[in-house]
Amino acid sequence: MKYVAGAAAGVVGTTLFPEKKAVADEAKTDWPWPYEKIDPEHARLVAHDCFHEYGCCYAGFAGVLKPLQDKVGEPFTTIPLEMMSYGYGGVKGWGTLCGTLNGVSAAISLVRDSKNSAPLIQELMNWYSQERLPTDVSNRYAEEHRYKAGKVSKLLPQSVSGSPLCHISVTTWSGVSGHRVDEPERLERCARLSGDVVAQTVQWLNEQAEGGFLSGRSLSASTEDCLSCHGPRKPEGNVFAKMGCVQCHGDPHE
Amino acid sequence: MKYVAGAAAGVVGTTLFPEKKAVADEAKTDWPWPYEKIDPEHARLVAHDCFHEYGCCYAGFAGVLKPLQDKVGEPFTTIPLEMMSYGYGGVKGWGTLCGTLNGVSAAISLVRDSKNSAPLIQELMNWYSQERLPTDVSNRYAEEHRYKAGKVSKLLPQSVSGSPLCHISVTTWSGVSGHRVDEPERLERCARLSGDVVAQTVQWLNEQAEGGFLSGRSLSASTEDCLSCHGPRKPEGNVFAKMGCVQCHGDPHE
Repeated sequence: MKYVAGAAAGVVGTTLFPEKKAVADEAKTDWPWPYEKIDPEHARLVAHDCFHEYGCCYAGFAGVLKPLQDKVGEPFTTIPLEMMSYGYGGVKGWGTLCGTLNGVSAAISLVRDSKNSAPLIQELMNWYSQERLPTDVSNRYAEEHRYKAGKVSKLLPQSVSGSPLCHISVTTWSGVSGHRVDEPERLERCARLSGDVVAQTVQWLNEQAEGGFLSGRSLSASTEDCLSCHGPRKPEGNVFAKMGCVQCHGDPHE
Repeated sequence: MKYVAGAAAGVVGTTLFPEKKAVADEAKTDWPWPYEKIDPEHARLVAHDCFHEYGCCYAGFAGVLKPLQDKVGEPFTTIPLEMMSYGYGGVKGWGTLCGTLNGVSAAISLVRDSKNSAPLIQELMNWYSQERLPTDVSNRYAEEHRYKAGKVSKLLPQSVSGSPLCHISVTTWSGVSGHRVDEPERLERCARLSGDVVAQTVQWLNEQAEGGFLSGRSLSASTEDCLSCHGPRKPEGNVFAKMGCVQCHGDPHE
């Protein structure tokens, strides 16, 4: 796992759609919606409890938007938060994209134009892939019984996914923790992770609102190595992706 | 690839969140929104052109919702369609979930409660994984110059992804077609695929509106075989996923 945690220099700029392109001119409603700073720790608690209602993607979306509904009101009160409930378990249990990342990305893209959502979402994808989750903060909150929902309050093992994919994230944690995917501990692990992702998202949205957000993470060294040959505009040119490679393809250097 | 195209009997019921659970009681706005039948072929054209504006996820979302904005008006005109633009290339180019599947799933989940969205989205994920895409219809439309956007009008090669992941879908097509991921043909392939996914989605939404939607596809035989041991409530119990396994793990029977 040496490549997974290591952040290398450089950014792989493989975007094939220009982030600066504006489509607001044809929007039928004003966009982006007016973000106001909210409390990341309150959003964490909201997300955790929302997970136990309706899964991770709803938790990611509602964890950001419920506090905005309460603080700002319209237009945030006009959108049914349930519309993002489909994304749990990587879309109805298919194990693709982590639902929490999906949900917060939709929330971010509601309050930021594409140019400003891009660095936040890139940072989140890298952070999620490289971080030990659930965080100590989420574990401590559970031990302090600060969550309304969920049956597990003990400290839970942590793991580094190396990938934003639900299946890799969950199965890696299952291997590290020894817990089956159908145990309450696994559900609670994902609930705490949802809180972690939402709190991190809100913190960076707040920093960006103050003009202080700086992205600092890069793709893993192994992924950069793979893309230096397989990425767009590179010799092979057959891969349009940034997620970790070694989780599926193995490490060619080992 | 023998397992990929083959549909086996049985449905893997690995859902860990009950689809029947209602959260509408706490919705601040009525949900689901009132779907009215729209023309799948018109939606296909809308989606194709939207792809060339803002990518696949926007195309999937707007391909369904723009026709509903035009036909129904409010509440569909109150949601900024750009909120789903983040999902292109499997979320800002990360190669995770195919953005079109993400976009149409959000649209479906806006007009269907969770119980009714589940069979549609499960069917779409299987259909996408098993179908030769882009379809003959999309290719014919291009040759007939029925799309407003896009620079490529020739017939394009087709491929079966075996997976709903963007990276696998795109790289498989790149291998079959010989086109690099950064060529206009690859972008146009994904534009036509977006139209295909949207047209199929609208057709099934229309059928469901008339009470006639029947799901018929199952997971691939190889995935069912893997999950019979690794899935939830099975002996190993370390996988919560339904996407194709052999694309990353190889086929243990070969």
